[in-house]
Amino acid sequence: MRIIVTVLFALFLVSCSGGEDKTVATGVTEKQQLFKWKLVTTWPKNYPGLGTGPENFAKKVNAMSDGRLQIKVFGAGQMVPAFEVFDAVSQGTAEMGHGASYYWTGKAKAAAFFTSIPFGLNAQEMNGWLHYGGGLELWRELYADFNLVPFAAGNTGVQMAGWFNREINSMDDIKGLKMRIPGMGGDVITRAGGVSVTIAGGELYTAMQTGVIDALEWVSPYNDIALGFHQVAKYYYYPGWHEPGPTLELIVNKDALATLPKDLQAIVETAARAVNQDMLDEYTARNNEALVQLVDVHGVQLKKLPDEVIRELRKISGEMLEELSEDSELSRRIAESAKAFQKQATAYHSISEEAYYQARKEK
Amino acid sequence: MRIIVTVLFALFLVSCSGGEDKTVATGVTEKQQLFKWKLVTTWPKNYPGLGTGPENFAKKVNAMSDGRLQIKVFGAGQMVPAFEVFDAVSQGTAEMGHGASYYWTGKAKAAAFFTSIPFGLNAQEMNGWLHYGGGLELWRELYADFNLVPFAAGNTGVQMAGWFNREINSMDDIKGLKMRIPGMGGDVITRAGGVSVTIAGGELYTAMQTGVIDALEWVSPYNDIALGFHQVAKYYYYPGWHEPGPTLELIVNKDALATLPKDLQAIVETAARAVNQDMLDEYTARNNEALVQLVDVHGVQLKKLPDEVIRELRKISGEMLEELSEDSELSRRIAESAKAFQKQATAYHSISEEAYYQARKEK
Repeated sequence: MRIIVTVLFALFLVSCSGGEDKTVATGVTEKQQLFKWKLVTTWPKNYPGLGTGPENFAKKVNAMSDGRLQIKVFGAGQMVPAFEVFDAVSQGTAEMGHGASYYWTGKAKAAAFFTSIPFGLNAQEMNGWLHYGGGLELWRELYADFNLVPFAAGNTGVQMAGWFNREINSMDDIKGLKMRIPGMGGDVITRAGGVSVTIAGGELYTAMQTGVIDALEWVSPYNDIALGFHQVAKYYYYPGWHEPGPTLELIVNKDALATLPKDLQAIVETAARAVNQDMLDEYTARNNEALVQLVDVHGVQLKKLPDEVIRELRKISGEMLEELSEDSELSRRIAESAKAFQKQATAYHSISEEAYYQARKEK
Repeated sequence: MRIIVTVLFALFLVSCSGGEDKTVATGVTEKQQLFKWKLVTTWPKNYPGLGTGPENFAKKVNAMSDGRLQIKVFGAGQMVPAFEVFDAVSQGTAEMGHGASYYWTGKAKAAAFFTSIPFGLNAQEMNGWLHYGGGLELWRELYADFNLVPFAAGNTGVQMAGWFNREINSMDDIKGLKMRIPGMGGDVITRAGGVSVTIAGGELYTAMQTGVIDALEWVSPYNDIALGFHQVAKYYYYPGWHEPGPTLELIVNKDALATLPKDLQAIVETAARAVNQDMLDEYTARNNEALVQLVDVHGVQLKKLPDEVIRELRKISGEMLEELSEDSELSRRIAESAKAFQKQATAYHSISEEAYYQARKEK
C-alpha cells in the first residue's frame, strides 16, 4: 500500500507540473511489466572476449532498462548445447542467443557470409557493409524464416592463420596436413589436399601434443595464449585468411522481441551495437599484450605464409564462394552484395587504412 | 484525473502479481522526471557524418528513455559558435556538446591525443586504447578540471592527405606550400617549411580556385566530394598521416550528468558507444562509394606521398609529440600511455590487419 501512496504523490507532482501528462501516463503504464529473459550462448560461460561479450550486453540492458528487462546468460551446455542455440531461440525456448552465424550453415548456407568468409571483409568493413551497405537487411531476410532477428554483437578482428608443427613452404606442405579448422576455411584446406578436423577447444592441446593433428587455428593471441598452444607447436603463422572479420551475432526470437515496448526494443538494439564494438576494442588491446608475451617471454616463432600458398588458397576460396552463391536466389543476392562492397572497400582501404599502416612504420 | 486512475489500476495489477514491488516502486517514482537537454556541436547542423552522429545519438537516447531524456541538437552558431562549445558545456549553458578534443588544446594541450595525433593510432586502435588501454580514464582526468565528462562518440577513419595543386616529389615541395591544415598536422607542415593556413570549410573551394592556397586537407572522399574540391585541385594525395584515427567526442557537464537517474546515465554512455561505431560504419561505406565517383566519373588523379616525405614528416611529428608531452605531468602520462599502446598495436597489426590487407589483393 505504501508503494501506491508514494507513486500517487509522485504523480500528483507531475500532473501539477503540467504539459507532459500524455508521455508520463504512457510511460508508466507500459513500464509496469518486467521481462526476465534467457540468453543462451555457444561459448563457455565467461569465455574471455567471446563469452564476456554477451555478459556485457546483459549488464548494459539491465542498467539501461532499470531492471525492467533482466537477461540471464547461459554458457554452452548450461541450458542447451552450443549447437542447439539457433533452434532454442527460433522455437522460443530461450528469447535470445549469442554465437556465430556460420555455425548455422546447415540451416541456411548463406549464413556463412554474416560471420566471415575466407578472403572477405575485415571487421571495419563488415560493420560498414552490415549497417550502411545493406548487409543487415539481407541477414534479417535470411533469418526471417526461422522467426529470428539477428544483430551484429561482437568481433574478434582478423584471426591468426594458426599454430603449425609442419613448416609451410609451398602447397605441397598442405597436402595431407591434418588441421583443426572448421567452417569454410576447413573446406578450403580439404580441397587443397589437407584434412580438416573438428576438435573441441579443450582437447586441442593434447591433440597437437600427441601428433593427432599437425596444425590448428583457434582465435588470436589473447585466446590462444590461454590454451598454451605455444608449448606444443613450433610455429605461429600469419596472416589469417580464413576469418578476416569474424562478426558474432545476437539472435532474438521475433515474437518475443515484438512483446517488448518500443523503448526496450531500442535498448536491445543499441546495447548490441555497443557490444559489437566493445568486443573488438577488447581483442585489439588484449591481442597486442598477448603477442608480446608469446614472442618476448615464450620465444614463439612467427612465420608468414608464402605468397604462393596465399594465392592458391584465395583461388580455391573464390571457387567455393561461387558455388555457395548458387545455393538459392537469396544466397546469390547476399554474395553479390558482399562482393560489390568488398571491391570498393579494397580500393579505398588500399589508399587509406592499409597505406597508413605502411606509412607509420620506420623504414 | 483519468491518468491517475489508469496508473492506479496498472499498479494494482503489479502489486497483485507480487515479488517485484521494490523495483517497480523505485522505477516509477524516479521516472516521473523529464529532462530536456541541449546538445551544442562544432558542426553545421546535419553535416554528413560528423553532424549526423550527434543527431543519431539524440534519437537513440530519446527512444531508449521513452522520451524521459529529450536532447535537442544545435548546429555550430545556432546557440553558441563552434569554438565555444567546450566553455558552454563546462559552464552548463548546454548540458552536452559534440566536437573534437583537439579544438581545445588552448585549454589543455594534451587534449590533442584524444582526437588523433600525426602518425598515431588508427580508429580500431584508438577504440582499443580508450576502452581497454587506460585512455578514457586519462581523458576524464584531463577534463575533470573543466567539470566535463568525455565519451568517444564517432570516428571518420584515417583521413586523406588532401588536395594539392603542387606535385610533391620531395621535401623541397613542402617549402613555401600554403596549405589549409589545422591542428598538429598544420604545425608539422609549418616546421617543415610550409605555411599552414586556417580557413573555414565554406571558403576552401574559392581559396583553392583562386590560388590563395596550394593545398588543403578536409576529411575523406565522402565529405570531400560534396565540397567539389576535385573541380579546383589537380591531385588527391594519400596516405593520410596527420589524422589517422580521428575520434569525435561527446562531452557532458559533470553536474548535469549527476542529476540523471542511473538508468539514464547508462543510456547516455551506451548511446555514445553505439554512435562511436555507427559513424565509422557510415564513413567506411560512404568513402568507398565516393572514391569510385571521384576516380571513375570525375577522373581524379590519386597520388602517393613519396617515402622520403613521409619519413621526414614522421620525424618532425615525433619531435613535436616529445615537446607536447613536456607540457605537464599529466601530458607526460598521456603521451606515454598512447605511445606504449601504439608500440604493441603496430607489432600486432603488422601481422594481422595490415598483413591481411596485403594477402587479400591479387598479386
